Amino acid sequence: MVSPAIRVPPSAANRALNLLRTVQYTHPPSCPCHGNPSHHHHHRSPTLSDHVRRHMATPVDPSRQKEYAFEMAASSIRFGPGATKEVGMDFANMRAKRVCIVTDKNVAKLDAMKQAVEGLSREGIEFTVFDKVRVEPKDYSIKEAIAFAQPYKPDAFLAVGGGSVIDTAKLMNLYNTYPEADFLDFVNAPLGKGLPVDRALKPLVAVPTTAGTGSETTGTAIFDLVSKKAKTGIAHRNLKPTLGICDPINTRTMPSAVHASSGLDVLCHSLESWTAIPYNERTPRPTNPINRPAYQGANPISDIFSLQALRSTVKYLPRAVRDPGDSEAQEQMLLAATLAGVGFGNAGVHLCHGMSYPISSQNPGYKHAGYDVDHPIIPHGVSVAVTAPAVFRFTAASNPDRHLAAAEAFGVDISTVKRESAGEVLGEALARFLSDLGDQPRGLKDLGFKASDVEGLVEGTIPQKRVLMLSPNLSQELEAEKAELRGLLEQSLDY
Amino acid sequence: MVSPAIRVPPSAANRALNLLRTVQYTHPPSCPCHGNPSHHHHHRSPTLSDHVRRHMATPVDPSRQKEYAFEMAASSIRFGPGATKEVGMDFANMRAKRVCIVTDKNVAKLDAMKQAVEGLSREGIEFTVFDKVRVEPKDYSIKEAIAFAQPYKPDAFLAVGGGSVIDTAKLMNLYNTYPEADFLDFVNAPLGKGLPVDRALKPLVAVPTTAGTGSETTGTAIFDLVSKKAKTGIAHRNLKPTLGICDPINTRTMPSAVHASSGLDVLCHSLESWTAIPYNERTPRPTNPINRPAYQGANPISDIFSLQALRSTVKYLPRAVRDPGDSEAQEQMLLAATLAGVGFGNAGVHLCHGMSYPISSQNPGYKHAGYDVDHPIIPHGVSVAVTAPAVFRFTAASNPDRHLAAAEAFGVDISTVKRESAGEVLGEALARFLSDLGDQPRGLKDLGFKASDVEGLVEGTIPQKRVLMLSPNLSQELEAEKAELRGLLEQSLDY
Repeated sequence: MVSPAIRVPPSAANRALNLLRTVQYTHPPSCPCHGNPSHHHHHRSPTLSDHVRRHMATPVDPSRQKEYAFEMAASSIRFGPGATKEVGMDFANMRAKRVCIVTDKNVAKLDAMKQAVEGLSREGIEFTVFDKVRVEPKDYSIKEAIAFAQPYKPDAFLAVGGGSVIDTAKLMNLYNTYPEADFLDFVNAPLGKGLPVDRALKPLVAVPTTAGTGSETTGTAIFDLVSKKAKTGIAHRNLKPTLGICDPINTRTMPSAVHASSGLDVLCHSLESWTAIPYNERTPRPTNPINRPAYQGANPISDIFSLQALRSTVKYLPRAVRDPGDSEAQEQMLLAATLAGVGFGNAGVHLCHGMSYPISSQNPGYKHAGYDVDHPIIPHGVSVAVTAPAVFRFTAASNPDRHLAAAEAFGVDISTVKRESAGEVLGEALARFLSDLGDQPRGLKDLGFKASDVEGLVEGTIPQKRVLMLSPNLSQELEAEKAELRGLLEQSLDY
Repeated sequence: MVSPAIRVPPSAANRALNLLRTVQYTHPPSCPCHGNPSHHHHHRSPTLSDHVRRHMATPVDPSRQKEYAFEMAASSIRFGPGATKEVGMDFANMRAKRVCIVTDKNVAKLDAMKQAVEGLSREGIEFTVFDKVRVEPKDYSIKEAIAFAQPYKPDAFLAVGGGSVIDTAKLMNLYNTYPEADFLDFVNAPLGKGLPVDRALKPLVAVPTTAGTGSETTGTAIFDLVSKKAKTGIAHRNLKPTLGICDPINTRTMPSAVHASSGLDVLCHSLESWTAIPYNERTPRPTNPINRPAYQGANPISDIFSLQALRSTVKYLPRAVRDPGDSEAQEQMLLAATLAGVGFGNAGVHLCHGMSYPISSQNPGYKHAGYDVDHPIIPHGVSVAVTAPAVFRFTAASNPDRHLAAAEAFGVDISTVKRESAGEVLGEALARFLSDLGDQPRGLKDLGFKASDVEGLVEGTIPQKRVLMLSPNLSQELEAEKAELRGLLEQSLDY
């Protein structure tokens, strides 16, 4: 593993290069060379020669500097059937003495919780259980959870559940480390202040019981900010769990409908992160690395995860939905959810997710089949997938090759497809995939939306800046952006 | 990102499943179901149905239990030309106040160090510099480094250099956290005690200046244990750096010969981890997750990294060696080195690395061209690659499909190749690749070894248990194992 770090004396060429570098790094406080808007490098990393070339260009407005680096961070992931029972030893190894277990009323009854509780008990670790996580959390449900943890003073957290549980646990951990903070301090801008997480949080182990959110690997937590009538969240890589324990036994309790909708979330995580703008097209470049967003645009490492997750989802989701006894498919979907989590957790999502938030919250009264709840519900995965055919038809022009590669993942023979047709072909493949999956709406109309609801959905999407900024092909000017969103939502009414 | 964690009431089938699970998990202290040696799952994850089937088999010897889970852990990685200068802000963000910078005499003069030092100074962070890292470290050079750090009481470490530097910094960090420990406590068994790292180490940021070791992402540190005349190391995932800053500007100082040999290390990291035994064939299964080795065998996540790194290396290494001005190729090789690091750092390496240690240390006097040193040297990458054609001819029978996929990465049209020929085809592709790269030995004879030296190399390989245990197709019985190693080394004399 060890390579020698031997160096030869600098040649004349090296000396010249060193000189160039010296020049380059004397621009205080940091090199402004990445902001020249005349340089567009689609899905190519900037190279030193680009770097040097840019320096020879005229100075540019620093506020328009483009990003020049990306950062990959993910929780450690342990994967294996039965691995849940190891969690007590993990906390013992971390020397945790008081653990706050976070779950919801339904998961509390499942075997995953039994294994977790037995694991902690076996190690003699004290714990308390908060089982009041709200599915699709709201700010007040999160604040209640935070208040629960405060007097207990846990030295570690354990989340057992789906994305809502894991997201809530992340925020219990965050605000217990910043007891003096205002709730909005960390909430994504522009709704909140979007402050970075600059203190070390307590260890958090996440045990997912759904194969969808990938929350066990990411630094993102999503909730409704009731006062602003907006779905938003808190996102910083330092919020990510210490360890995700992905135990395929735990996802076998998902009903088929939950398999389908959480799998559609995986599908969109992978497709959106794969097609998000490249990291080096994002502006502005952070002046401090702690401000580099987790949702930073597609990059060469997130790409690997996103494409692999897409391929697995296309292959295994239909099997997992069709046959709850297909343990290979269930296991592969849990893995795909985690891989997609690493992908979008470091690249971001864009239009499907941006529009899904108002679609879910402005639900005209739709209740998805197979969901045993006493109120209307458009599952998150359904609300992201319903616009997907229109979205990828629209974004394809930004990078036809990536959209063709995605179509190929759906089994399309792309050898004879023209690049201009990439969007059409991918949109069609997606529509067919959704239709073949069964029990999926064929557009917003099936969810009860009318043409007259589109304007409200457009208005509800506009505040989702954090994801919209990663949308390829979307106009930056407000009215043009609205017109584009309107077009996407209208095309998504039925298909 | 949030999927609902809604559950339906358990059906009769679910209840039956729950019962099975209850049975399954009442085997104290943990489920012994993975050790049935009659089950061989080559490169397939165990599924619940396997799990249940195994329970129906007869009880087995617990010491032969097979692994059932894998764990992926990697340092956060920041990648971008110029990212080195951010490192001062990183330490400020971690609230570090006294940083120990670790480097070697040569790297100390390079721009990477200048950027690092300026970065810390700009933030007003106090630091000291240890620049006496030995290339290819020995235990005494590591102990000297540890002793240097002790009185300074750093609250963080910064490594700027190649694998030797980063590995040394990891051990300075380790033993400064365990000041009372004996050096052998953490050294890999059987030479040392192989204790797990169960305390939180100080933050370590690694800035690689070579594109080879991937040490910036791994929990491995390699050195010579002089008293035992053996190359060994310390490996635990908790030893991994907090952050690796991969700045392509820093690898531009590598001479062409270093590019080539460090790139060959990347090649073998990716090929060996891709072909290592699957994690669920490894024995014994750890009874505590902290004892799950980082070198755990191939798994579905390491696979993604290893195969991608292999493809990139085949594509970009020849360009990087041929043209030191090909910045795209250099950048891609740095990325490939890091990806391969994540791959082998979580899967392990096997025969090429196992045999490379005695090849390097029993060097009959060979001095590799392009290395400006005053003593004989077989660069690490050269010593791993020299046996590669023979190794993969030998291992192919264990998993022909993987070896064919590797051959395909070298550009071989595998559509008409029979599975029995996988080893031959991959071995030939490798030999051709090495030959085309230029300035590479055509076997051990070119390094000065004679047929009579083979026995010494066999004896020097046998203690490398940690990597040999991951070798597919290698006999477990000592004499048979020696015969196989002898065969590999004889075939590697010339080709």
